[in-house]
Amino acid sequence: MDRSRLEAFSDGVFAVAITLLALDLTVEGPGHGHLIDQLYDKWPAFLAYLISFFTIGIIWVNHHALVSNILVVTRLLLFLNLVLLLFVVLIPVATGTVGDYLAAGGFDAKLAVAVYGIALTGMSVGFSGIAEWSLGEGRTRVPVPPDKRWAARIRFMSGGLVYLVVIGLAFISAPAALGLSGLVAVYYVFERTPVLGGAGDTPQESGQDT
Amino acid sequence: MDRSRLEAFSDGVFAVAITLLALDLTVEGPGHGHLIDQLYDKWPAFLAYLISFFTIGIIWVNHHALVSNILVVTRLLLFLNLVLLLFVVLIPVATGTVGDYLAAGGFDAKLAVAVYGIALTGMSVGFSGIAEWSLGEGRTRVPVPPDKRWAARIRFMSGGLVYLVVIGLAFISAPAALGLSGLVAVYYVFERTPVLGGAGDTPQESGQDT
Amino acid sequence: MDRSRLEAFSDGVFAVAITLLALDLTVEGPGHGHLIDQLYDKWPAFLAYLISFFTIGIIWVNHHALVSNILVVTRLLLFLNLVLLLFVVLIPVATGTVGDYLAAGGFDAKLAVAVYGIALTGMSVGFSGIAEWSLGEGRTRVPVPPDKRWAARIRFMSGGLVYLVVIGLAFISAPAALGLSGLVAVYYVFERTPVLGGAGDTPQESGQDT
Amino acid sequence: MDRSRLEAFSDGVFAVAITLLALDLTVEGPGHGHLIDQLYDKWPAFLAYLISFFTIGIIWVNHHALVSNILVVTRLLLFLNLVLLLFVVLIPVATGTVGDYLAAGGFDAKLAVAVYGIALTGMSVGFSGIAEWSLGEGRTRVPVPPDKRWAARIRFMSGGLVYLVVIGLAFISAPAALGLSGLVAVYYVFERTPVLGGAGDTPQESGQDT
Repeated sequence: MDRSRLEAFSDGVFAVAITLLALDLTVEGPGHGHLIDQLYDKWPAFLAYLISFFTIGIIWVNHHALVSNILVVTRLLLFLNLVLLLFVVLIPVATGTVGDYLAAGGFDAKLAVAVYGIALTGMSVGFSGIAEWSLGEGRTRVPVPPDKRWAARIRFMSGGLVYLVVIGLAFISAPAALGLSGLVAVYYVFERTPVLGGAGDTPQESGQDT
Repeated sequence: MDRSRLEAFSDGVFAVAITLLALDLTVEGPGHGHLIDQLYDKWPAFLAYLISFFTIGIIWVNHHALVSNILVVTRLLLFLNLVLLLFVVLIPVATGTVGDYLAAGGFDAKLAVAVYGIALTGMSVGFSGIAEWSLGEGRTRVPVPPDKRWAARIRFMSGGLVYLVVIGLAFISAPAALGLSGLVAVYYVFERTPVLGGAGDTPQESGQDT
Repeated sequence: MDRSRLEAFSDGVFAVAITLLALDLTVEGPGHGHLIDQLYDKWPAFLAYLISFFTIGIIWVNHHALVSNILVVTRLLLFLNLVLLLFVVLIPVATGTVGDYLAAGGFDAKLAVAVYGIALTGMSVGFSGIAEWSLGEGRTRVPVPPDKRWAARIRFMSGGLVYLVVIGLAFISAPAALGLSGLVAVYYVFERTPVLGGAGDTPQESGQDT
Repeated sequence: MDRSRLEAFSDGVFAVAITLLALDLTVEGPGHGHLIDQLYDKWPAFLAYLISFFTIGIIWVNHHALVSNILVVTRLLLFLNLVLLLFVVLIPVATGTVGDYLAAGGFDAKLAVAVYGIALTGMSVGFSGIAEWSLGEGRTRVPVPPDKRWAARIRFMSGGLVYLVVIGLAFISAPAALGLSGLVAVYYVFERTPVLGGAGDTPQESGQDT
């Protein structure tokens, strides 16, 4: 019944992954042109860094909200969590690939953003797996009532659907697809409602929406 | 009697090691051929990543189950845990070596998978050391009864024996040996029983098998 | 109301970022000149390492003091904390850039230190955001009385103002600007008063000023 | 009075540093000679990895024992802890330098081991600072009686003295000095007594010497 190590391990992975993101911004050092040109040429990497930082940050906030509501930790939950982390851990590499190839244009840029979209979709599928599991009887402190389960499902699966669109859109326009994944992050920063219905509906929590 | 820092430090090492795994998937950037060819050529790295991710994930889940049952933290236990981590920390490097050399074939590929098998065997030996230690009197919350100790030993040592086979098999067929280490991971994902007998035998835990 | 994961995630990011700092000190290995020359040529990297290590260390100490006083964890607080971490995570890369370019001199050195100053300013803005939020009613264990709020604001915003000066000064003299950011770190090591007024004013805490 | 974040942050730094150690073992990949030759040529890196892994592991175990005894967390303690971590974080880089230069021989090898000795000495000084601080009145759960303080000081400072010898010996024989730092690690693995007198003297703890 001990949630603490699940949280500690996940927090560790989120923290390492979010910190590794910045390594993609490393410049090549003296002898590779003026620093200002190097920094300017890195604008796709800075953009991808910003989007990925807030994407991982938001999934951490939502993971936090979701897991803090969970009462029992089963082996299945631990493996669903591993599936989530399997894709979280890919985000720094996928972000670096976008930063490297976005300005190159052509099919390489499209493929780079599509791969990035695959990592985000996988992350979203992993998160949805945990959220779906948490809808089961007696698994959460504040259960989602049966008639609100589909509303909750639509809410936590909609992110994944948008990320599927990112994959498809990438093959039409890489910058547009990257922009769409950025919009998802912006949307979730301002979306006040917690991921699962139950918690946000109680008045005493609506003011602090942890 | 304080298990928390043992868990926190171990979780940190597991989290960093599992996140570093993904760095082996970094492509070389523009000017090194089409991205799609680079990604395709990386299939051994993706395969090794998947196997290693779930292998570290599973040993973390089992470490979690084993340590949460421990009542006393001795200096000896801390050092047995260090032996486990000594090999966990090697897995990202060994995985990268497999990813680099598997497609090369020949003796290099065989040696790469054998080295990978050595890291997995060492990890398994470290885990067995902790498990063996936990069989001692008064060391766990739910002790393993004397007549079940050999069954428990066989269970937690069998992983290490398979990994020994991985080392030997590597010199015959590198892909087969890598596949076998993947099968161990798949087996443990579906193996419902906790590592040590005691915990899984009590009915109230069998439904949630933490 | 659970501060623990906010702290755990932040501690993880601070810990990874502070450890990555040292990677900038890696020498190039045999075949790149005498080791003693390589180490000597790295003096800007060692200096930047020292300043950044204590800068991150101090912001961690102050984050610790600030967050331990917080009673409620809201979604807004989590995002303010993400803004702080967004810039903390940039410090290792910015430090590496300073280490690479400081000795090169010219505009590159100035720009490198200015970029470093931008990362520090951003970190300070993120911290001030959390501190400002914590001044709100009922958000902290030991609230800051209304008449002391401006004093508290001046205290936690002064670091950011000095870092703005670092950015400007960098374009006049890169070493002087780096030195100024080092002075901020030295100042905060000796500054005994906690960041927010309340805590340090109670006599029982003044002796141990956690 | 909250020890938990001091422990969490330190555990994070120890965990990242100990995991980064293994990155020095990365081989260069196909096209740089037979894998078996690359691995064989890396024996100094493997040796340095082993010594550093157990050195960091032991300082973590001793830090664990020392901090778990501390009652009050002051700003001074947090900064003493930062001094310890300043040098812990240097160990992966210093280890990598030893691995790169030991086989090269000559002054470079000697200097590499001397630099390694400096990092270990600094770590030991930082640890001694925390231990010295903990001897003050009312700072620990089990205080060291006044007549045993010098015995405690000799015990926790002796590691640092041996590391000073490592620095000097490095300039005579790099392998001998590295071997001596390895002996310190072996000694502390078998040294049963906790670092500070108090804890180990109570009978109920002598059996489990956490």
